[in-house]
Amino acid sequence: MSSTAGQVIRCKAAVAWEAGKPLVIEEVEVSPPLANEVRLKILFTSLCHTDVYFWEAKGQAPLFPRIFGHEAGGVVESVGPGVTDLQPGDHVLPVFTGECKECRHCKSEESNMCDLLRINTDRGVMIGDGKPRFSINGKPIYHFVGTSTFSEYTVCHVGSVAKINPAAPLDKVCVLSCGISTGLGATLNVAKPKKGQSVAIFGLGAVGLAAAEGARISGASRIIGVDLNSNRFNEAKKFGVNEFVNPKDYAKPVQEVIAEMTDGGVDRSVECTGSIQAMISAFECVHDGWGVAVLVGVPNKDDAFKTHPMNLLNERTLKGTFFGNYKPRTDLPSVVQKYMNKELELEKFITHTLPFTEINKAFELMLKGEGLRCIIRMES
Amino acid sequence: MSSTAGQVIRCKAAVAWEAGKPLVIEEVEVSPPLANEVRLKILFTSLCHTDVYFWEAKGQAPLFPRIFGHEAGGVVESVGPGVTDLQPGDHVLPVFTGECKECRHCKSEESNMCDLLRINTDRGVMIGDGKPRFSINGKPIYHFVGTSTFSEYTVCHVGSVAKINPAAPLDKVCVLSCGISTGLGATLNVAKPKKGQSVAIFGLGAVGLAAAEGARISGASRIIGVDLNSNRFNEAKKFGVNEFVNPKDYAKPVQEVIAEMTDGGVDRSVECTGSIQAMISAFECVHDGWGVAVLVGVPNKDDAFKTHPMNLLNERTLKGTFFGNYKPRTDLPSVVQKYMNKELELEKFITHTLPFTEINKAFELMLKGEGLRCIIRMES
Repeated sequence: MSSTAGQVIRCKAAVAWEAGKPLVIEEVEVSPPLANEVRLKILFTSLCHTDVYFWEAKGQAPLFPRIFGHEAGGVVESVGPGVTDLQPGDHVLPVFTGECKECRHCKSEESNMCDLLRINTDRGVMIGDGKPRFSINGKPIYHFVGTSTFSEYTVCHVGSVAKINPAAPLDKVCVLSCGISTGLGATLNVAKPKKGQSVAIFGLGAVGLAAAEGARISGASRIIGVDLNSNRFNEAKKFGVNEFVNPKDYAKPVQEVIAEMTDGGVDRSVECTGSIQAMISAFECVHDGWGVAVLVGVPNKDDAFKTHPMNLLNERTLKGTFFGNYKPRTDLPSVVQKYMNKELELEKFITHTLPFTEINKAFELMLKGEGLRCIIRMES
Repeated sequence: MSSTAGQVIRCKAAVAWEAGKPLVIEEVEVSPPLANEVRLKILFTSLCHTDVYFWEAKGQAPLFPRIFGHEAGGVVESVGPGVTDLQPGDHVLPVFTGECKECRHCKSEESNMCDLLRINTDRGVMIGDGKPRFSINGKPIYHFVGTSTFSEYTVCHVGSVAKINPAAPLDKVCVLSCGISTGLGATLNVAKPKKGQSVAIFGLGAVGLAAAEGARISGASRIIGVDLNSNRFNEAKKFGVNEFVNPKDYAKPVQEVIAEMTDGGVDRSVECTGSIQAMISAFECVHDGWGVAVLVGVPNKDDAFKTHPMNLLNERTLKGTFFGNYKPRTDLPSVVQKYMNKELELEKFITHTLPFTEINKAFELMLKGEGLRCIIRMES
């Protein structure tokens, strides 16, 4: 039992007071965990586009003041009543989408979309009592996707916390909390290329490169990167991408370019941009008879996926995935283990490291499109 | 070696001279099979919508005179040079789409869309020499999808002929040549419902009922039939359909009706109408997290399948199938065997039987939407 258990902890957190305005490092109060909750000491966090998207709050109802952050690694500080799966000292990854282990989705082998703890970007409070655990002089500060890792301490539902191998370096495996697992799982769990097959990856950001990493691990022979920014190809080679197509370089649709390069289409494709046109191209560029296209990127509200149904009837498969089809608590430990076994390479995703005091620089890097993942060290 | 081997055979065939006009039973000449071809004596044939569609020739370039027919059972009369897989006397089902066993599709475990012998409704000749094997007084008569079973004798490419158990009654298993296998395989090979799951079947014609039969065989607990004709429900009960929805009975979209009936959606759906709206409904009525929708029906040329991409990202799968994903030569023997083992019931699909001389009555029955399959006995 830590000395802080049961007490309010005062610590530093990066608070977003207003949409799009720099975060402010504040001293916040973090209440002890209630039933089925755990309080974590965050050691490393990283920044993902989703944080930036909701911080900019251009496409949804703003909810401020709020503590963002959902890719992180930490240690359990204390646990609330009823928590038996975790104990203080456990090394963990908080995850933006949970696994209650009780609902139909959790009980299904095929789904990871937990009814209770599925991502909810509108909710800024704990599901147990509908209140936040953060405050500044008693004024509530809202949570983000059940994780709020831009804080030295945070409170999560036990179902949103994956216990991992304590030997795993948290400054590396923290990136498995969200984007990297999403791309990796899209390939390994959903597209499932066979050794020697061809895979097209649409979008060579961190998620797309993680999908490419999955293709590399699967032994794909041709990994074709598709991106509107040709500068990304060089970096992508490290992730196994060995051919590159920039749709801007061609007059014809990119699906036709890929079909010509591959004698009828790739065996698998993974779409990681969220652009509806890329989704359609990713589907239409897979080979008839056996091609599988997997959609990862999150579309706009009003987008419509549109294709001729004969493209489906010719035995193509179209699937979407969420968090790479990983069940966070059940499956993340094995993804961490892939890193420990040197099967999965994480270092190449980490292009920057910053101290917590400079967290706004991480936002700037992402807005400029520089680098892949910036690790933020919570301890100075 | 039969006494007719190597000779032109004169026999009866039902010739379509013009689009939409009754077939005429004529005496035709059937040339001997050339390399990689076999000549079959057809004993039973049945009528499928595709015959009627191309006979009406409303949607495509007409090709007449032509001998239709592609669901049939017969016996090999003679084989051409190079044929080693079949010999005279073998019991066979000719199939409208073939399996060369050499191309990438045939070598793929996942595809049955043979590059060489994939269905081609425009071709009216043999692929070996580009000529038909049928004539009347030397005037050529065109083939249909490589089978032309409305003739006492026909010539097929060896890759379009499945050898089956000689103990199987050809007047029953002939229906496995096309529609019944298409629906059955869509469920058994593609939708793959698990025991106890729910399945929605869109369209309760012969193909849809065969899909339902697949769901029954799979042990599905709820088999929900969807059809605009409520009269079909009673018949459908024989095929395991235990709930019925007529979209006309509701103001809201049928996918919403089904989602309400099933607490969020069915586990699997199979679309067997070819209506684009039914395809979209069939996709949108499956449960998020694990639902699989399978499209079977052939759409119109200008149709567009349209859905919000979030429906995919919420882990639904959309697949199309062709001939139930069965490889005709490799897999049909095992489907026949399912019938022999009394696992699959075929008798209930056979609602009419007619002698060859009354083949036009079979067209009338189909145009009136009466019955499921009409078996035509070639021998009087």
